[in-house]
Amino acid sequence: MPIEEILARYLPEEAGMQKTVLEAMNYSVTAGGKRIRPRMMEAAYRLFGGRGPEIEPFMAALEMIHSYSLVHDDLPAMDNDTLRRGKPTTWSAYGEAMGILAGDALLTYAFETCAKAFAQTEHPERVGRSMGILAEKAGISGMVGGQAVDVELTGQPVSREQLDFIYRLKTGALLEAALMIGAVLAGATEGQVRQMEQIAADIGMAFQIQDDILDVTSTQEELGKPIGSDERNQKTTYVTLEGLDAARAEVRRLSERAIASLETLPGDSTFFREFIRKLETRSH
Amino acid sequence: MPIEEILARYLPEEAGMQKTVLEAMNYSVTAGGKRIRPRMMEAAYRLFGGRGPEIEPFMAALEMIHSYSLVHDDLPAMDNDTLRRGKPTTWSAYGEAMGILAGDALLTYAFETCAKAFAQTEHPERVGRSMGILAEKAGISGMVGGQAVDVELTGQPVSREQLDFIYRLKTGALLEAALMIGAVLAGATEGQVRQMEQIAADIGMAFQIQDDILDVTSTQEELGKPIGSDERNQKTTYVTLEGLDAARAEVRRLSERAIASLETLPGDSTFFREFIRKLETRSH
Repeated sequence: MPIEEILARYLPEEAGMQKTVLEAMNYSVTAGGKRIRPRMMEAAYRLFGGRGPEIEPFMAALEMIHSYSLVHDDLPAMDNDTLRRGKPTTWSAYGEAMGILAGDALLTYAFETCAKAFAQTEHPERVGRSMGILAEKAGISGMVGGQAVDVELTGQPVSREQLDFIYRLKTGALLEAALMIGAVLAGATEGQVRQMEQIAADIGMAFQIQDDILDVTSTQEELGKPIGSDERNQKTTYVTLEGLDAARAEVRRLSERAIASLETLPGDSTFFREFIRKLETRSH
Repeated sequence: MPIEEILARYLPEEAGMQKTVLEAMNYSVTAGGKRIRPRMMEAAYRLFGGRGPEIEPFMAALEMIHSYSLVHDDLPAMDNDTLRRGKPTTWSAYGEAMGILAGDALLTYAFETCAKAFAQTEHPERVGRSMGILAEKAGISGMVGGQAVDVELTGQPVSREQLDFIYRLKTGALLEAALMIGAVLAGATEGQVRQMEQIAADIGMAFQIQDDILDVTSTQEELGKPIGSDERNQKTTYVTLEGLDAARAEVRRLSERAIASLETLPGDSTFFREFIRKLETRSH
């Protein structure tokens, strides 16, 4: 089933007295995006031969968590952004209080959605394990932990160690959840689940460093947003710390390592290989 | 095990690069409170003969969710409160961005904590069901739904139907989760779980109406905060809508109904009966 259909099926109905917050939730999720995380989750599930429907609530849930993080990131006390993908951000459209609540509601609804998988699976222990992974990777050991360190270090010099931590948690953790949960739900071994975690960490880090490279080398036209914003904001990036050549070499190294690791797995990893190649050569 | 010990055992360790957000999380949870929700959850579990350890992560998780809701409620865009129980609110102590993130982190950590119960139970399906109930009652069909309607109607006239909705969801829903999850984890029947939901709804509503009564009839000394605040804020309450006599009669009616329902259940419901009697006669 196409990803947008899966999402639509699991989003809440906009009815009842709390209609406005429901609209704000759906507004955030349906605002677009490449749906990279649920796509990768599904690919990981297929890689290990998964064929059941229990992956779908998790795909929807992961995208809800990604959306909530953007909703809260855009808030005045955080990045204070009024536009995202050319549309008013959730808080600009619905007010700041409703932006906070819509984010809270999406995060909570993600777990409500995952719990629906218990009725769709023959392996409740895999669903339980997957919910634990999702919470861990979305929370203080994952995305929120990375956000918090990023917020705390704003305006301060950032070391390589700190930058690696922020990139791994803020960007990488939800990708790790995607690949690990796909593997767990399909019945992969513990070793394979850990291997998928490392592959996702490499892909996430390569993706983030490529972002830093594009901010310097791309054109505003290609990127769809102003270039050089990191320098203007005096932001520490992989490029400012290590230079452009080292950054490019690191993207290559991480990509090759992820691909080599994928090739040791039994299933067909074409999807991931193509994704990684595109990531390496993308211009936006 | 005493409730504060259970909480301490499940709160995250304040270590690592993300130490500040971890401190902010624990600051919120350990700031005090009567721990009504986990206490009632445990009592419901005992009522149905539950004896395992799997109730403990759920008790801690429920209190984390209650705490996160207070952290986000206090934010400048919501109630803009700088003090809670005589101490600076989380955002006043740690900044607004960290307040948002600490709330997000607590909510996520609540689900991470529940997932630990899978390793402590012989009934994974009960743990899965309980996680679904927790998410449902904390989210748009529960607490957040009630908050959203409350925020939306601020400064507007509120009907009895709207007030009932807000009270049931904002105050009642987490109590419903407490009693339902206690029953589910102990292996109660579906009918008993629904009965506990209704009992919790009655208790929650009685509790909230009693609050409205005390705002009019108590003294500042007894209540520990200024009385008459609802009138000053032109807030619609059960008392402003129905009058003091009708409010008192409704608290009595709901309390009696809850007690009568409890008496049809097999276990010893002394804890709940005493709790309800105290609630009816409390002066603060």
